[in-house]
Order: sequence, then structure tokens, then C-alpha cells
Amino acid sequence: MSGIFISFEGPDGAGKTTAIKRIMPQLQKMTDKEVVLSREPGGSPISEKIRKIILDIHDEEMDPRTEALLYAASRRQHLVDVILPTLNEGKVMLSDRFVDSSIAYQGGGREIGTKEVANINNFAIEGHLPDLTIYFDVTPGVGLARIKKDHEGEMDRLEKAAISFHNRVYDSYAEIVKQNPNRIKTVNAEQSPDKVAADALNLITTRFPKIFKVQGE
Amino acid sequence: MSGIFISFEGPDGAGKTTAIKRIMPQLQKMTDKEVVLSREPGGSPISEKIRKIILDIHDEEMDPRTEALLYAASRRQHLVDVILPTLNEGKVMLSDRFVDSSIAYQGGGREIGTKEVANINNFAIEGHLPDLTIYFDVTPGVGLARIKKDHEGEMDRLEKAAISFHNRVYDSYAEIVKQNPNRIKTVNAEQSPDKVAADALNLITTRFPKIFKVQGE
Repeated sequence: MSGIFISFEGPDGAGKTTAIKRIMPQLQKMTDKEVVLSREPGGSPISEKIRKIILDIHDEEMDPRTEALLYAASRRQHLVDVILPTLNEGKVMLSDRFVDSSIAYQGGGREIGTKEVANINNFAIEGHLPDLTIYFDVTPGVGLARIKKDHEGEMDRLEKAAISFHNRVYDSYAEIVKQNPNRIKTVNAEQSPDKVAADALNLITTRFPKIFKVQGE
Repeated sequence: MSGIFISFEGPDGAGKTTAIKRIMPQLQKMTDKEVVLSREPGGSPISEKIRKIILDIHDEEMDPRTEALLYAASRRQHLVDVILPTLNEGKVMLSDRFVDSSIAYQGGGREIGTKEVANINNFAIEGHLPDLTIYFDVTPGVGLARIKKDHEGEMDRLEKAAISFHNRVYDSYAEIVKQNPNRIKTVNAEQSPDKVAADALNLITTRFPKIFKVQGE
């Protein structure tokens, strides 16, 4: 496969999505390859159906292991329908969340165990890890305050969880980052949106200097 | 848990469901415990939603690993919602299919690998295997001929699969039976429906003589 695969990870309220929107057009200007953005389950009708079940706010009684298996199923189909074809065409694939989210949220947050959730995700992705993962580091207090300000009550099932849940997610992310020093690079996401986006962009262009040509060079 | 958990397994057209309907009232007459029959995803609304996605005949492009993860998710929720509460109440739980079906159909039939599919199912069931599994042994030729006769074209996605698929399912079941001689007992399902039901009933009452009292004893 000739494409490159970059995922963006972080707790709720880290500003990932905002940063990706800012850096995507900048990345596109710096390369001849097409830059494609996807967010699970985007572009996969089967994944979309699965995600609807997960996020249905009426499914209060969903078991955490059911939820983890559904996320892995949705991810698998998204990989097959969207990510692998994009990489096979030599494009740059940006993914807003990928396996690390499941390990942190279901493995750590829901206390299933990070190793157990990593195992079912390995079944789902068959080794197709991102070439680079940008981790947006924001502490739960700061992240949740941002969400409350932006959404005002329109929080979905995951965002309604207790602070202890978000603390476990944060700790699990910290552990994943520590265990994957080559794949995962960290941005301080408590900075201004401009600085966060600039730092993320810099990490990407530094990692792939042959693909993204910085102006003036 | 004071209940007992019995699953029924076999290839398509083995006559499992017919046999269970016959033996269930007979078992109930032989015990003071309530005998409960369930078929995944029966009685679990979340499992039902998941199963709808799996069996949608329009989802032709579903990846085999997505399918395996969805079956495991549906099974997990059915276990939590139906099977474990039934066993905790001390009842006899009869299940028309359980984990062995996934290992044979997705692991063997769809060629994902029986070990890989067993692993994600272990995540789903956390060691809650049946106390006894009755395996209805029917060769693919005989089983498929029965289905064609009964359904006349109303075959769902799994039943529409090629004969090579059904041969792999049969071989995988044979392997699972061989590996679990204590848990799984085999009935020759190519006999008459009366004889198949009688043999299955006999295997159950022989295994649990304190729970099922044979008349005249």
C-alpha cells in the first residue's frame, strides 16, 4: 500500500475535530496526494447501522462488552469499506479516532481491561495500525468544561458518563501513549486552538517530509 | 448459579429446532425446575437489533470479521439479559445454538479461523459455557436437502452460501466435538425425527439424573 494513515486521538473536549478541520486544507496544499478525512463510521452503510445501535440513548442497558464488540465490528467494516481502499489508491487517510479510542474508552473507561479490548480490536484490524497517531492531551476537567460550553445539554451517552469514567479514559490514553512512543506523538491540547493545530501539523510534516513539502523549502 | 445450561448445535437442516420442541415438554414433566427455551437473540431487544443487521439480505458486502464480531456482540447481550438471569433463578436453560455455532460458521465456514473466532467469543461469554451441548450430526447433503424441501426459496443469507461453505462448517463442528468430549454429546441426526428427539432426551436425562426423574424410577 502506497498511502499513509494518520489517526487523531484524545479524550472528549480535546479539540481534535476542530484541529483536523484546520490542518486538513493546509496538508492538502503541501502534497500532490489526495488527503481524505474520515470519522468512523463515515462512508460505510453497515458501520453506520452498527453505530446507530451504540449511540442510541435509549439503550441504557447495553453491556460494556457488547458495546466494545459493536465498536470493533463497526471499525472492521469501516476499515474494509473506506480506509484500505483509500490507502490502496495511494492517498493520505486522516481518521478522527481509531483503535486507541476503544482501548481507552471501553478497556479503561468501562473497566473491561485494555488488553482484552486490544485483543478484539486486533481481530478487527488485522495489523492495520496507523503510520502516525496524533494524541491531543487534555485533562478531564478542561475537556469536559469545553464540552459543556459547546453542547449545552446535548451530550450523548458517552459524554454523560461520570467524571471517574473520564479519569480512567485519560489514564488509559497516557498508558497507550507510553507504550507506543514511535507511533503516537503528543500535542498539548490545553493550548489555544491555533497553537494546537500548528503543533499537530508540525508533527505530521516532520514525520513525512517527503510527502508534505513545507513552503519555502 | 444453581441452574443448568444446555445448548443444541448442528449444521443447517439438522432438525435441532424440531427436536427441541419435542423434548422440551418432556423435560418439563421430569423436573420441578422451570425449563426455559431461548434462541439468540430471543428476549434481548439490543441483541434483536444487532441480529437484524446481520441477517439483512441486502448487506451482501458485510465482511466476515464484521459478521463474527456482531454475532459475538449479540451473544454477549443475550447472555447478560436472558441466560445468566435464568440460571441465577435456578432454572433449566435450553439454548438453540451458542458459541460453537460461531466457531463452526464464521471460524470454519467463512475461513476466519476457529481459534480467532473462539477468542472473540471468549471475550463475549467470559467462561459461561454450557454444562452440556447436544450436537445434531447431519452431513451437508442430507441437511441442505431438508432445508430446500421445507423453505422453497425463502433461504436467508447463510443458507444461500455455497456447498463448500457448508462442508467447512461440518468439518469444523467435527473438530469442536472431538476437542470437547465431556461437554459435547452427539446424536445421529440422519435418523427419524422421533429417534433423534429420543436420543437427545436420553443424553440429557443421563447427564443430569438428579434433576430429571425418568418415570417409573
